[in-house]
Amino acid sequence: MSLAIDLNSDVGESFGRWTLGDDRAIMESVSSINVACGFHAGDPSVMRATCRAAAEQGVTIGAHPAYRDLAGFGRRFIDADPAELAADVVYQIGALQAVAKAAGTRVAYVKPHGALYNAIVHHEKQAAAVVEAVADIDPTLPILTLPHSAVLRAAEKRGIPTAIEAFADRAYTPDGSLVSRTQPGAVLREDQVQEHVARIAEGHIKAIDGTILDVAADSICVHGDSPGAVAMAAAVRQTLIDNGVTIRSFA
Amino acid sequence: MSLAIDLNSDVGESFGRWTLGDDRAIMESVSSINVACGFHAGDPSVMRATCRAAAEQGVTIGAHPAYRDLAGFGRRFIDADPAELAADVVYQIGALQAVAKAAGTRVAYVKPHGALYNAIVHHEKQAAAVVEAVADIDPTLPILTLPHSAVLRAAEKRGIPTAIEAFADRAYTPDGSLVSRTQPGAVLREDQVQEHVARIAEGHIKAIDGTILDVAADSICVHGDSPGAVAMAAAVRQTLIDNGVTIRSFA
Amino acid sequence: MSLAIDLNSDVGESFGRWTLGDDRAIMESVSSINVACGFHAGDPSVMRATCRAAAEQGVTIGAHPAYRDLAGFGRRFIDADPAELAADVVYQIGALQAVAKAAGTRVAYVKPHGALYNAIVHHEKQAAAVVEAVADIDPTLPILTLPHSAVLRAAEKRGIPTAIEAFADRAYTPDGSLVSRTQPGAVLREDQVQEHVARIAEGHIKAIDGTILDVAADSICVHGDSPGAVAMAAAVRQTLIDNGVTIRSFA
Amino acid sequence: MSLAIDLNSDVGESFGRWTLGDDRAIMESVSSINVACGFHAGDPSVMRATCRAAAEQGVTIGAHPAYRDLAGFGRRFIDADPAELAADVVYQIGALQAVAKAAGTRVAYVKPHGALYNAIVHHEKQAAAVVEAVADIDPTLPILTLPHSAVLRAAEKRGIPTAIEAFADRAYTPDGSLVSRTQPGAVLREDQVQEHVARIAEGHIKAIDGTILDVAADSICVHGDSPGAVAMAAAVRQTLIDNGVTIRSFA
Repeated sequence: MSLAIDLNSDVGESFGRWTLGDDRAIMESVSSINVACGFHAGDPSVMRATCRAAAEQGVTIGAHPAYRDLAGFGRRFIDADPAELAADVVYQIGALQAVAKAAGTRVAYVKPHGALYNAIVHHEKQAAAVVEAVADIDPTLPILTLPHSAVLRAAEKRGIPTAIEAFADRAYTPDGSLVSRTQPGAVLREDQVQEHVARIAEGHIKAIDGTILDVAADSICVHGDSPGAVAMAAAVRQTLIDNGVTIRSFA
Repeated sequence: MSLAIDLNSDVGESFGRWTLGDDRAIMESVSSINVACGFHAGDPSVMRATCRAAAEQGVTIGAHPAYRDLAGFGRRFIDADPAELAADVVYQIGALQAVAKAAGTRVAYVKPHGALYNAIVHHEKQAAAVVEAVADIDPTLPILTLPHSAVLRAAEKRGIPTAIEAFADRAYTPDGSLVSRTQPGAVLREDQVQEHVARIAEGHIKAIDGTILDVAADSICVHGDSPGAVAMAAAVRQTLIDNGVTIRSFA
Repeated sequence: MSLAIDLNSDVGESFGRWTLGDDRAIMESVSSINVACGFHAGDPSVMRATCRAAAEQGVTIGAHPAYRDLAGFGRRFIDADPAELAADVVYQIGALQAVAKAAGTRVAYVKPHGALYNAIVHHEKQAAAVVEAVADIDPTLPILTLPHSAVLRAAEKRGIPTAIEAFADRAYTPDGSLVSRTQPGAVLREDQVQEHVARIAEGHIKAIDGTILDVAADSICVHGDSPGAVAMAAAVRQTLIDNGVTIRSFA
Repeated sequence: MSLAIDLNSDVGESFGRWTLGDDRAIMESVSSINVACGFHAGDPSVMRATCRAAAEQGVTIGAHPAYRDLAGFGRRFIDADPAELAADVVYQIGALQAVAKAAGTRVAYVKPHGALYNAIVHHEKQAAAVVEAVADIDPTLPILTLPHSAVLRAAEKRGIPTAIEAFADRAYTPDGSLVSRTQPGAVLREDQVQEHVARIAEGHIKAIDGTILDVAADSICVHGDSPGAVAMAAAVRQTLIDNGVTIRSFA
């Protein structure tokens, strides 16, 4: 029996004159990329370059819709009306679909960005809005998210496929949540990351208190824009391969 | 033998708290609507409402992409790089396609907006960029524009279908151009409009000096947001019907 | 002894092609205007036209800063970092100061807009950020807000002057809060408004349950952009004058 | 007799999540900084950080207003209406004035950015609009620009002070214009730069054909955001000092 898992990373987060991250280098390590759709980052030219690179490098594209917040990079919760949010998400995914198609590829899943990603873990109405948007666009498009989240429940209820992700460099509590970044040990050291991802591929996470949790992750998220992101992504990939794990898209 | 022509109007040009025009009333008179795609007007919620209304009222949807210029309503020429402009146009059309699909309808043609519309009458590189964008999205999507324009030539060269429009309330020079708005008589009086549109449906325009021109217009453009726009659109429609002309989309 | 009170209204909330409200008509009734500063509405040309009209009509100008949210008209809470919010508020007030100065007038107070106004009633950190911004710009600029609010306490602590406002068309609870708009009777009928404002000028509010509250309002807020806003503002002004109350700016 | 000249550079061109240039390092070499005002770059938090750094490092601040074009970084000509442009420029300078004042410093001059800078070399109406804006804000604020430019003439006519700049790394034609970037040799090699700036400080430029031109530059512009910008600025400074030239603001 062979193990397989997806590696995903946020890319395409440049905008106009401003560049962020080394997307081509990241794409050498991951199997899926979450592509910014213009609301928090990623102008159309950046989106096109990203989709072309993904097509060339054989990487799967996910839409990475966000709150409309360039100045805040989509990292600030916005108390958006759910109907309005749903329209914003349809707009962003549709725009990326066209750009991807023009580049000879396609959007294979949806992973909301930043504060929207965090909000729909618990905000039932915004979670339902995101699910409704995906259902409106294409009810076969999977949503990539955290286990035990509002968006996961809403998607299941609506019959939208889902995929579960775990984070390569984050510590977990015994109940399977992420340790808050305000707590010590929330972000794993580089040496801890490798053990952590190997365990995730086998279906387990060791929580911060040592408890072993079962986790059925379809994908592992590695960061794309921090210093050392490229090296970290490559190291995670190598660790997985060394452990006999195949890296491939879940979509 | 029966005559038929399309009537088109710009709609969906509200944004957020701000409303513009009486779109539902205009849609009762026209057969095609040019729907703003978010860059000069038309946030995603407005786009959705517009597409839903079009689906209900049986009106054909065209994409109405523009320069990225909310503050200027897309009415200011921007010396955009052609490659960047092409990506912006793909983005906008794609976003509208998704919104239209979610509303149970589809984008049937493309008519650039405002300063972009005017620029690509003569600006060869921007015209080619718009054509390239349409080719990338769907080479069967017609572009609606003026006769003798750079974009028309570029589309024909690239094998993209085109449709020709005339303006209900604008005077023409003997060479078939629009009389500049800075000239007296450039905008027709309401009583002149009716004679003008009846003649367009028959394939002719009487120029400002009385010359009769041949014109093969597929569509007549009526304004959507000026005072009296709704009454004007209804009067144009009635005049055409009274002259035995069927009003239907060219697409 | 003569009574005097200020009447304030939000104006200058057009943007680019989109107009909102009849500002000149409203300015005939009020003594103070809250001028949008570009983040939720009010491009620089609108701001200039508004300041020029205020200078001509002798109306006092207040800055009306907001979250950066054109699409949401500043009506959506944004979980902005306080330091970032403070910079945004300095920026907006400064921009309006320059525009007002160029129009021969000046900014005499600050009243935050929409969701920011509501947030700083209770959000201590954002309230402190707004106060810090005003202190940085000019510690003699009064902040106009609700009684019992976090921003009022923060301003008092920091030594920034404040002014208290009451709403012409809103019902109050016995503890002096506004009745939530989700409750019946939250918005007063036109006939109730006149009795309500006359009482405010005398220092009282009759709560929704009949309790008489003491209130020391420096200003009464009338809406600027709802249908009937102009007539309502004029009626409120007339009622006050009929009751012997002088209408003049608190600043 | 001692020579003195100003060195200026564009800074504060980060925005939100995106950083650009190493502003603190550049500020160690230059005497004046052109600070982005939010329309092409520079959100209010970036502006505040820049002004605080300038105050600490004793560097003179100029406003760097631009077309409203974040996506194009202000590098695309926009055919803005002059009255609208004037309001946009007042807005941007005013915002920076407030931010600078809050940081304990002030705006000492104005240098338009990018495509606006280039446009007002020849576009008489936009040049007049920029001058009108400066006159409205403070008619003692100098405008920093090219010799022989429309904005220079307009400023002189209006009685606004001006300052002339030359570029450290650009070749000149025999008539004193910049060699177009599309021509070979337009951008000087690093070794040419040092000879060029030393000569500018003495009042001369050697044109690309060897002609020696008289030039009375008040300031030399060094780039802030290209690779090697910091080293180049430092080298230019050292060359000037080695040639006995004092580096100090013209304002």
